[in-house]
Amino acid sequence: MRHVISALVQNQPGVLAHVSGMLASRGFNIDSLAVGATEDGNLSRMTFVVHGDDGVLEQARKQLGKIVTVVRVDDISSQNYVERDLMLIKVNASAIPAHRDLALVETFRGKVIDITSDTLMIENLRQRRQDRSVHLPDARLRIIELARTGRIALVRGRGKEGAPA
Amino acid sequence: MRHVISALVQNQPGVLAHVSGMLASRGFNIDSLAVGATEDGNLSRMTFVVHGDDGVLEQARKQLGKIVTVVRVDDISSQNYVERDLMLIKVNASAIPAHRDLALVETFRGKVIDITSDTLMIENLRQRRQDRSVHLPDARLRIIELARTGRIALVRGRGKEGAPA
Repeated sequence: MRHVISALVQNQPGVLAHVSGMLASRGFNIDSLAVGATEDGNLSRMTFVVHGDDGVLEQARKQLGKIVTVVRVDDISSQNYVERDLMLIKVNASAIPAHRDLALVETFRGKVIDITSDTLMIENLRQRRQDRSVHLPDARLRIIELARTGRIALVRGRGKEGAPA
Repeated sequence: MRHVISALVQNQPGVLAHVSGMLASRGFNIDSLAVGATEDGNLSRMTFVVHGDDGVLEQARKQLGKIVTVVRVDDISSQNYVERDLMLIKVNASAIPAHRDLALVETFRGKVIDITSDTLMIENLRQRRQDRSVHLPDARLRIIELARTGRIALVRGRGKEGAPA
């Protein structure tokens, strides 16, 4: 099953290595990871998405919780949560007439954020479980580069992670 | 100095532990990290932002490049690049009249994506070097939770990372 794990960790060197080392030692491949600051300057939040056996993952979650620099770990997959990620895509658009740009971007449901004579860069915000792959609407287009944030997620309403929403 | 490091890595368990372990052993604290899929299903891209001495960081970059599962590492900080990150903020809005919601969101330059009787969840997309902190426009508001992706970045125009843009 797909799990979304949200962890509050102390903001210091080595925490990420510790957490990722523990997951790697159990053979979990992390589908996506996002690490960023929180409302508390001493804490960062790691959100990671992993696929794995529920029981094994629950063991891993408990082990993560025992790491001294990990303040709190929750598997929010079973709760009512909002999920987002962000993608930047650079495509070779030299073969595409300029008036097609808009249609192109609409297909991506994105927004053009950079244009050069032969490239377009598109920003694309995605919701929960939208298709991960990128479909190019024109065979002449080619992805030059793509960067994607990991998914972030918050439980809806008053619930914090771990508590009923 | 602030550095934006973009690394293409093989999509397998242990790579993140290896990379983050190397950075931790040199005492770098990672400000933000984003790991996500790329246009190539075998590769993931890690984008991390670190602050550190230029010389020491260049050594670290070279060492990262020697890790077998790391395909390519570039410090794109000196190039012309586009940078974005995404934030989800949940605020306690029970003390705020409903008609204030819109003004509130405008202040955040964000978009309301979830509303309950006493909370608002806001999605906030940010550009390069925008202020990291969150300013609440009303003293009655309180942040309940906040999640942030790491920054992602692509070099403008035809340039791939590492090559002149």
